[in-house]
Amino acid sequence: MLATVLHSPGDIRFEDCADPEIIKPTDAVIRLSATCVCGSDLWPYRGVQKVPEPTPMGHEYCGIVEEVGRGVTSLKPGQFVIGSFFASDNTCPSCAAGYQTSCQHRELVIGAQAPRLRVPLADGTLVATAEIPPEELIPSMLAVSDVLGTGWFAAEAANVKPGATVAVVGDGAVGLLAVLSAKQMGAERIIAMSRHSSRQKLAREFGATDIVTERGAEGVERIKQLTKGVGADSVLECVGTQESMQQAIGAARPGGYVSYVGVPHGVTLDGQSLFFTHVHLHGGPAPVRRYLPNLINLVWNRKIDPGKVFDLTLPLAQVAEGYRAMDERRAIKALLRP
Amino acid sequence: MLATVLHSPGDIRFEDCADPEIIKPTDAVIRLSATCVCGSDLWPYRGVQKVPEPTPMGHEYCGIVEEVGRGVTSLKPGQFVIGSFFASDNTCPSCAAGYQTSCQHRELVIGAQAPRLRVPLADGTLVATAEIPPEELIPSMLAVSDVLGTGWFAAEAANVKPGATVAVVGDGAVGLLAVLSAKQMGAERIIAMSRHSSRQKLAREFGATDIVTERGAEGVERIKQLTKGVGADSVLECVGTQESMQQAIGAARPGGYVSYVGVPHGVTLDGQSLFFTHVHLHGGPAPVRRYLPNLINLVWNRKIDPGKVFDLTLPLAQVAEGYRAMDERRAIKALLRP
Repeated sequence: MLATVLHSPGDIRFEDCADPEIIKPTDAVIRLSATCVCGSDLWPYRGVQKVPEPTPMGHEYCGIVEEVGRGVTSLKPGQFVIGSFFASDNTCPSCAAGYQTSCQHRELVIGAQAPRLRVPLADGTLVATAEIPPEELIPSMLAVSDVLGTGWFAAEAANVKPGATVAVVGDGAVGLLAVLSAKQMGAERIIAMSRHSSRQKLAREFGATDIVTERGAEGVERIKQLTKGVGADSVLECVGTQESMQQAIGAARPGGYVSYVGVPHGVTLDGQSLFFTHVHLHGGPAPVRRYLPNLINLVWNRKIDPGKVFDLTLPLAQVAEGYRAMDERRAIKALLRP
Repeated sequence: MLATVLHSPGDIRFEDCADPEIIKPTDAVIRLSATCVCGSDLWPYRGVQKVPEPTPMGHEYCGIVEEVGRGVTSLKPGQFVIGSFFASDNTCPSCAAGYQTSCQHRELVIGAQAPRLRVPLADGTLVATAEIPPEELIPSMLAVSDVLGTGWFAAEAANVKPGATVAVVGDGAVGLLAVLSAKQMGAERIIAMSRHSSRQKLAREFGATDIVTERGAEGVERIKQLTKGVGADSVLECVGTQESMQQAIGAARPGGYVSYVGVPHGVTLDGQSLFFTHVHLHGGPAPVRRYLPNLINLVWNRKIDPGKVFDLTLPLAQVAEGYRAMDERRAIKALLRP
C-alpha cells in the first residue's frame, strides 16, 4: 500500500510500504475512515525532534475492523472503532487507575497516515460504536481519537469545575478542544490565549468568553488583570515550550491547577520558583482511552462538534501539503481521506 | 532582651536585641511558652543559603498574648495562641482558598527564638485555645505551629486517602509528622525512608508500616518491590534536595501524587521526564493556618502526640547547642525554653 513516511525534516513522502498484518494474536487490522496530521507530528517535521531513519507517520485513527487475531474477543470485522496513540491492555494497575498511556504493556501505534493500520492490544485499545456512524460524524469521531481526548485530559488534569475561571495557553487543535472541554465541564469563564483571528473565532464558538493576545509576562499580566489580580483557577498548557509553561504557571492563582498535555520540548522547571507559586501540576500523555466511551457518546448525540478543528481536508495522497499547511499555520488541522 | 541571631554560617549568638513592640495596629506581642530550631534554619546555618547580615532567627512559636494593637479585635492579653511562619490576613482570595502562605498581605514572622515576639496581622494569624493548655501539651502545641502543619500539608497535597499506600522521603521532624498525618488520614501502608534507628523507631510509633533504608535509584527500586512494581499512590517529599525530589517522583505510581514541602535548594525538574511519569505535583510553603484549629483540637484531645519529635530540650540561652545537635543529627528537633 501507499503510506506516509518522514525521511528527514520537511521531507514527507507518500510511498510504497508493507501492508499491515496480524503479528500477535491480540492485534487487529483496521481500514481507516479518516486520519489526520497532529501538532506533535510537526516536532520531527521541523527537526526539533530527531528523525534517525525513515519513519511511518500518523497516530490518529478511526475506521472499520478488517481482521482480528485469534486472541481478540471483544471485536469483530465490520465494526467501526476508535483508538488512541498508545495501545493499552486496559487491565493493568496503571490502566485500572485511568492512566492507560502508562499501561505496563503499552505500545505506540504508528503508521496511521495510511489506508490500513495494525493496532496492538486491540481488545484494550479500541472502542467500537453500536452502529457505523454517518459520514458527517467521521471528522468528530477522528478528533476524539487524540486532540479532543487530549484537550479533555487537559481540563480534567487542571481540575476544571463548574463556575471555574479557566485559561488555555495554545490555540492549536488541542488548545481549542481544551476550551470545548472546559465548557462541557461547566467553566464559567474561559480565557483563550490566541493571536490568530480564525482560531479566536473557533475558540469563541467552543465556549471562550475572553481572548488574550499578549504572550509571556504580558500575557500573565493580562490574565491577572482579568481575574482581579488573583490568577485563574485552572490553566491548561497545550503547547509544550518553556515559554508556554512559564506563562501557564504564572497565570494560575496560588493553589490553582496547571495541566500540561503537549510533550515538553526544552522545558525545565526551577524547583524553588515552582514551590512559591503554590500551583498543582499534572499532565503527561493524555489517557484518551479513559475518555473514549463518554466522548464517542457526546459526538454521537451531537452534543459537541470537535470535528470543526479540521479546516482543511485533503486526499491522503496529498499528505505532504497537509504538513506544509499546518507548519505554516495556514491550517489548524488537516484531515486526510484514504 | 536576649535573643537568637545568626551572624554567619555556624555562628549562632544569644545576644542583646531590641524588645519587640506593637508597630502596626494589627500587631500582637506574645510571650513565648516554648520555641524551637527548624530544619530550615539549618540551610543558612550551614551556609547553603546566604546570610548577608546578622539575622534574628526562629519562626515556630506558641505563647501568651501580652499586648495587642488597637486594630486587633479577636484576641486579648492573657490568651494562649499559636501561629505560623507567615502572618496572613486570612480574608484575601488566597487565604479564602486555603493558601494563607500566599496571602496577598503576608509577612514573615521572624525572631521567635526569643522570650517575646511581635506577630503581624494578629487577627488573621493567631488561633487562641479556649483555655491555657496544661504544661505537658506545650511541646505538641509548638509542633502544630510548623512541623506538624507542614507534615499535614504534605499528606493532603499528596492526596492521602483511606487505604492508600504512602511513601515518605525524609526522616526529619516534618517527615516523621508526615507519617503521623498520613496515618490520621487513613493510609493503610506507610513506607518511611530512613536509615537512622531512633528516627525509624519514632516513624513506627507514628504509624509507619515499612522502613526503607536505601536511597536514590535503589530506594525507588525498593518502593517498587514493595508495591508489586507499581509505585506508591502518594509520595511525600520532606527534604528539598534534587536527590530527594527525584526519589519521590520515581517512587510514585503513574497517576500518583507527589507533594513537596521543604524549600527546594538546587532542584530543577526536566519537563519531559516529569511528563512521562504522569505524577501529580503539589507543594509550597505549608498553609499551616488552614489546619491550626483542627490540629490544636487533635492535640488538646490527646488524639496525637506530635511533640515526640522533640528529643532534646534546652534553655533558650543554649540555642547554639540546639543548632549543633541538629546539624550533627544528634537530635531530631531541639525545643527551647525561654
